[in-house]
Amino acid sequence: MTGNPWTRVASSLKYATPWFSVREDEVIRPDGEVGTYSVVSVGRLAVGVLPLWSDGSLTLVGQFRYPVDEYSWEIPEGGGDFEDDPLDTARRELREETGLEASGWNYLGRVHTSNCFLDEVCHLYLATGLTQGVAAPGPDEVLQTWRVPFRKAVAMAVDGRITDAISIAAIFRLLQRAPRLATPARQAARR
Amino acid sequence: MTGNPWTRVASSLKYATPWFSVREDEVIRPDGEVGTYSVVSVGRLAVGVLPLWSDGSLTLVGQFRYPVDEYSWEIPEGGGDFEDDPLDTARRELREETGLEASGWNYLGRVHTSNCFLDEVCHLYLATGLTQGVAAPGPDEVLQTWRVPFRKAVAMAVDGRITDAISIAAIFRLLQRAPRLATPARQAARR
Repeated sequence: MTGNPWTRVASSLKYATPWFSVREDEVIRPDGEVGTYSVVSVGRLAVGVLPLWSDGSLTLVGQFRYPVDEYSWEIPEGGGDFEDDPLDTARRELREETGLEASGWNYLGRVHTSNCFLDEVCHLYLATGLTQGVAAPGPDEVLQTWRVPFRKAVAMAVDGRITDAISIAAIFRLLQRAPRLATPARQAARR
Repeated sequence: MTGNPWTRVASSLKYATPWFSVREDEVIRPDGEVGTYSVVSVGRLAVGVLPLWSDGSLTLVGQFRYPVDEYSWEIPEGGGDFEDDPLDTARRELREETGLEASGWNYLGRVHTSNCFLDEVCHLYLATGLTQGVAAPGPDEVLQTWRVPFRKAVAMAVDGRITDAISIAAIFRLLQRAPRLATPARQAARR
């Protein structure tokens, strides 16, 4: 009962950019009727990187997100070719957006961002053993970085100061694996 | 430094379905250069509903998600007109997908699902005081429901059995507001 109840009969490309394309599939729906399913297909594999310092703080990246018309504080995110190792993409995006290099990498699993019409998959990573280098954002990226205690990032993800679903998922998964990161005692030890 | 560094010069509709459209904006980028920003615009306001029973269990909905080619366990989700009260949309989607009616509603904030090229905003709700009625899914929806202890849903969201970012965000936000829901003692009280 968990198999694919949809049958694709035909598919045609309707629109394409370097970042995504739209295809229109002629399908036989689960109820047996003929229908159309339009899918936004992301041409790249997405990654999100949670850069955690040894003192329990986290580096967030801030940028104005044009599609939602809001400023957004997030973990470093980006995309790479499907042929590339997602970890290499994660290393590169972390370096470009924040200048950070990490010696430790842990996989935090994947998420689907909007599975009703978008095929995007985002792989999440925890990056540790951080050292600061020089950032090299793209020409259309105006980024700020902000180092916050992990427990503050948790509060922001919960109270809505962070709205980016990828960041929220990464913060949640790390918190569940390392709950002590968010305790006051941990923060007290920083001072 | 958190204002909009992009200027829209022109906008043209490139593709439209009842669920989303694609527009191509001619923009002046943050670096002053002329560029193109393609945005997937969701024609509806998205909602996600976390239906919590008085025994601390949660009703999940399972369906095959065609765009990502995977079966997905999620909280009930859907969309409504922008003019509608999102809470009314949440009530309707919960009823249609699960047959549940709720007497208590709490807002869990909003998330952006993929803010790099998609304008989708999803409003999250906690639904309590549940009573079971009859579900009425759409003709193209083949749904299963599954009632699981909240702590199991938390584990699924963390270990990747749940990949849907909206569901993960809702489960995280409820857990942080009501951590006792996930304790073994709470679950023991069910037996």
